[in-house]
Amino acid sequence: MTARGVWSVDPRTGERREEVAAEATAQDVDAAVRAAHAARGSLADRAVRAAFLRTAAASLAGAEASLVEAADAETALGRIRLTGELARTCHQLRAFADLVDEGSFLDVIIDRPDDTAVPPVPDLRRYRVPLGVVAVYAASNFPFAFSVPGGDTASALAAGCPVVVKAHPDHPATSERVAAVLRGAAAAHGLPEGVIGLLHGFDAGVELVRHPLVAAAGFTGSVRGGRALFDAAAARPAPIPFHGELGSLNPVLVTRAAAGERAEEIGAGLAASMTLGTGQFCVKPGLVLVPDGASGDGLVAALAGQVSRAAPGVMLDRRMSDAFVAGVAERAALPGVGVPVPAEADAERRVSPGFLTVPAARLTAAGPHDLLLEECFGPVTVVARYRGEDEADAVLSRLPGNLTATVHLSAGEAAGEGAAADVLARLTRIAGRVLVDGWPTGVAVALAQHHGGPYPASTSTSTSVGGTALERWTRPVAYQTTPPALLPPELRDGNPLGLPRRVDGRWER
Amino acid sequence: MTARGVWSVDPRTGERREEVAAEATAQDVDAAVRAAHAARGSLADRAVRAAFLRTAAASLAGAEASLVEAADAETALGRIRLTGELARTCHQLRAFADLVDEGSFLDVIIDRPDDTAVPPVPDLRRYRVPLGVVAVYAASNFPFAFSVPGGDTASALAAGCPVVVKAHPDHPATSERVAAVLRGAAAAHGLPEGVIGLLHGFDAGVELVRHPLVAAAGFTGSVRGGRALFDAAAARPAPIPFHGELGSLNPVLVTRAAAGERAEEIGAGLAASMTLGTGQFCVKPGLVLVPDGASGDGLVAALAGQVSRAAPGVMLDRRMSDAFVAGVAERAALPGVGVPVPAEADAERRVSPGFLTVPAARLTAAGPHDLLLEECFGPVTVVARYRGEDEADAVLSRLPGNLTATVHLSAGEAAGEGAAADVLARLTRIAGRVLVDGWPTGVAVALAQHHGGPYPASTSTSTSVGGTALERWTRPVAYQTTPPALLPPELRDGNPLGLPRRVDGRWER
Repeated sequence: MTARGVWSVDPRTGERREEVAAEATAQDVDAAVRAAHAARGSLADRAVRAAFLRTAAASLAGAEASLVEAADAETALGRIRLTGELARTCHQLRAFADLVDEGSFLDVIIDRPDDTAVPPVPDLRRYRVPLGVVAVYAASNFPFAFSVPGGDTASALAAGCPVVVKAHPDHPATSERVAAVLRGAAAAHGLPEGVIGLLHGFDAGVELVRHPLVAAAGFTGSVRGGRALFDAAAARPAPIPFHGELGSLNPVLVTRAAAGERAEEIGAGLAASMTLGTGQFCVKPGLVLVPDGASGDGLVAALAGQVSRAAPGVMLDRRMSDAFVAGVAERAALPGVGVPVPAEADAERRVSPGFLTVPAARLTAAGPHDLLLEECFGPVTVVARYRGEDEADAVLSRLPGNLTATVHLSAGEAAGEGAAADVLARLTRIAGRVLVDGWPTGVAVALAQHHGGPYPASTSTSTSVGGTALERWTRPVAYQTTPPALLPPELRDGNPLGLPRRVDGRWER
Repeated sequence: MTARGVWSVDPRTGERREEVAAEATAQDVDAAVRAAHAARGSLADRAVRAAFLRTAAASLAGAEASLVEAADAETALGRIRLTGELARTCHQLRAFADLVDEGSFLDVIIDRPDDTAVPPVPDLRRYRVPLGVVAVYAASNFPFAFSVPGGDTASALAAGCPVVVKAHPDHPATSERVAAVLRGAAAAHGLPEGVIGLLHGFDAGVELVRHPLVAAAGFTGSVRGGRALFDAAAARPAPIPFHGELGSLNPVLVTRAAAGERAEEIGAGLAASMTLGTGQFCVKPGLVLVPDGASGDGLVAALAGQVSRAAPGVMLDRRMSDAFVAGVAERAALPGVGVPVPAEADAERRVSPGFLTVPAARLTAAGPHDLLLEECFGPVTVVARYRGEDEADAVLSRLPGNLTATVHLSAGEAAGEGAAADVLARLTRIAGRVLVDGWPTGVAVALAQHHGGPYPASTSTSTSVGGTALERWTRPVAYQTTPPALLPPELRDGNPLGLPRRVDGRWER
């Protein structure tokens, strides 16, 4: 069988631009994984890893013009957005380099012998070691930040794991260029090419997660695709951790008091957040609980005004815009659903943002309206009008897990009045990030970030963004009664590497 | 259908002692899980949790005589061992109480706003929250330490998660008594009974892991049973973390130089470790690589001397001793396998320890001898005689994941001579705990402990013993731009609770 060609497609026209590569065969997958596995040892030195990540950042930044051009040509995300995304990606690589140097992620804990304990404690020294080859499944909507050079790649390399990326078919040319830049950075530090592999093709992705030498996987994408890969990872003879980000509705609750104080501001903020990037963010607010009555009406009017003036945009591929149009139509056809601003596609494949309204009472029990509680990728949101807090709570309690949950409060509620603390506790149960008076779009790269949440937001409890993301690619190992000469330097007495460590319960910094 | 009775059986005679309870129906499972779910809020206060755990420890210690008697009657593990195990269990509960007070497990990270970052960083404050109801599957071989009041229960309660335990059928009466003691301790702190549920029956165990309100599971047992539950957890509409400890061979490598120096000592140590508790430990050394030649012969002779003098013991149940005898016979029948001391069962159901020998060359490639690389629960081990280091390495490289891996070194090797560091690196790849010049039996309860390892040692990267075990029952949540009045006190400015926290990258202690 001849391998099929992988084409770069212009989403603005639907036309094929160039043939970039061939879909990977099973042999190609095996070769990439074996090369990565053979490269494990080359990443053992933390200083080399940190230097490699910094060089990768500098090289990507140096290639900005051509990378942004390549990405725009096959994603239509626009140069401004893509320039920002590349800067974010470079910052992320540097931030992980800093974390590699700092060493907290090693979680060093040392207990010296204690014969009085029950049972006695021998000399025990624990830290985290890399898991091995990591499979990264790139997302469609971030050709840099959640793709070949994205968070999972950066954190896996930082943790000491070689990476094999399954490219997203929406930007194969960008993926190839970026991989070449990363391999150049690796070569500059004497690292083999195998530290960063790249594969194209659906079947290759399935082969990859099943490969015996793959030790863990990261995924950002749809529930359908992600769940299939999660299931394959769990069904292996030796299952592996699968960190998948599959989908999120990102509910927003606007309290009655908040709507009373800031209806227009909230409506405008919502319009900006839901239309950003043509609604193609995993943290797009997809369900907004707005009170009935005059202030809620004002919010909806402000939203309608802004959304109807928003520019149309081109989605990442034709399949997506078709699914978007069909998904909106199916939702709009449900009984009781209003369409203040219709989301539509024009003859030139551009989609205009829109939104739907529905009485929250339709969402408090299972039924056909449950479709409104499923993510619809693209520039649309659902405004559910609630009568009382109980009704809003009833809807929130029916939601699956989310990456984010947001509440807009009045000044008094923000100061602690009313039941605002209870609302926050409820949102905490359904999301990995809880926001007050903000919008979920925009995911900061920070130590305290958490980008994950109860299923289907994530298939694991770890984060794909932020300083603690290295955790997902490591496992602890404890050394018992190991002679000083044979201990890894991270675990030796006297803390020769100056790491943050916990020794006999006390912190050493 | 009438519920089947659950009987306590005397393993010394095989006779039924008493009917303890009925197997749980699907309705019973649902009721226990709902009661646990309803009890979540009662565990929110860390001070209450810590006090409850300490009272539980004191109450169990206070009931020592009757609990040990009950456990000995249905496990035959003996009063000395069970008294020690109960002390360990109480120590573990107190140790988790201390960790709850100390608060490191909350992993508090705070980043204050930084508008200069790309993208900008808003106020972000992250800590770990309890996952919800935890299902604990009790082990046969530790009626206290890995059962109703064991590590998973203690760490889950410490993390703020109510627990529903699936009792092991080998000690149902002990399980009921212990659960009553724990519920009494809960009541003393005003906690509802639902914080600790108890169910009997195989079907109930399967129902439990499938229940929509169960948020995570912990398991200690066999590959077959554990894998079935792992698969059920992964196949749920919303999969949950399943932390299973399924099996481990616990390889030991004796270097030629070590055998040259300490053949007798190592042989005697191995005999003690493999026969301890009638070989019914998950960390029993099950494969020992010993050099050929005179010093290795001396080691085997010392082992044979000690093992042939070891007292017979009663295994936990008849199914186990039958499986042990059959497993040993199947292994002994393989070509080239020697039986210096036969492991046997007598007419009174007591098993005598024994061991097998095999040329390591039989284990370097796939074939019928792979059976020798599978755990055989009970007092037997396999001594594989190797000719050169390459042969020993080849065997190690074929092993699945292990809880432990041990090497015995000469004094010179311990000081760094030869390839000892390489050996440690290889052992690190296949185990969660690496020991030098020791024996894996005896798992200390300590902050630096790690009890887990690559599959099938564990289905996850977390530990079931030691200070970091709370991690498996929690998930991070980040709060963005949340007003001070609404922040959990753990995350407020000024560190009102005096927690270890990381603020803007700096540690606060």
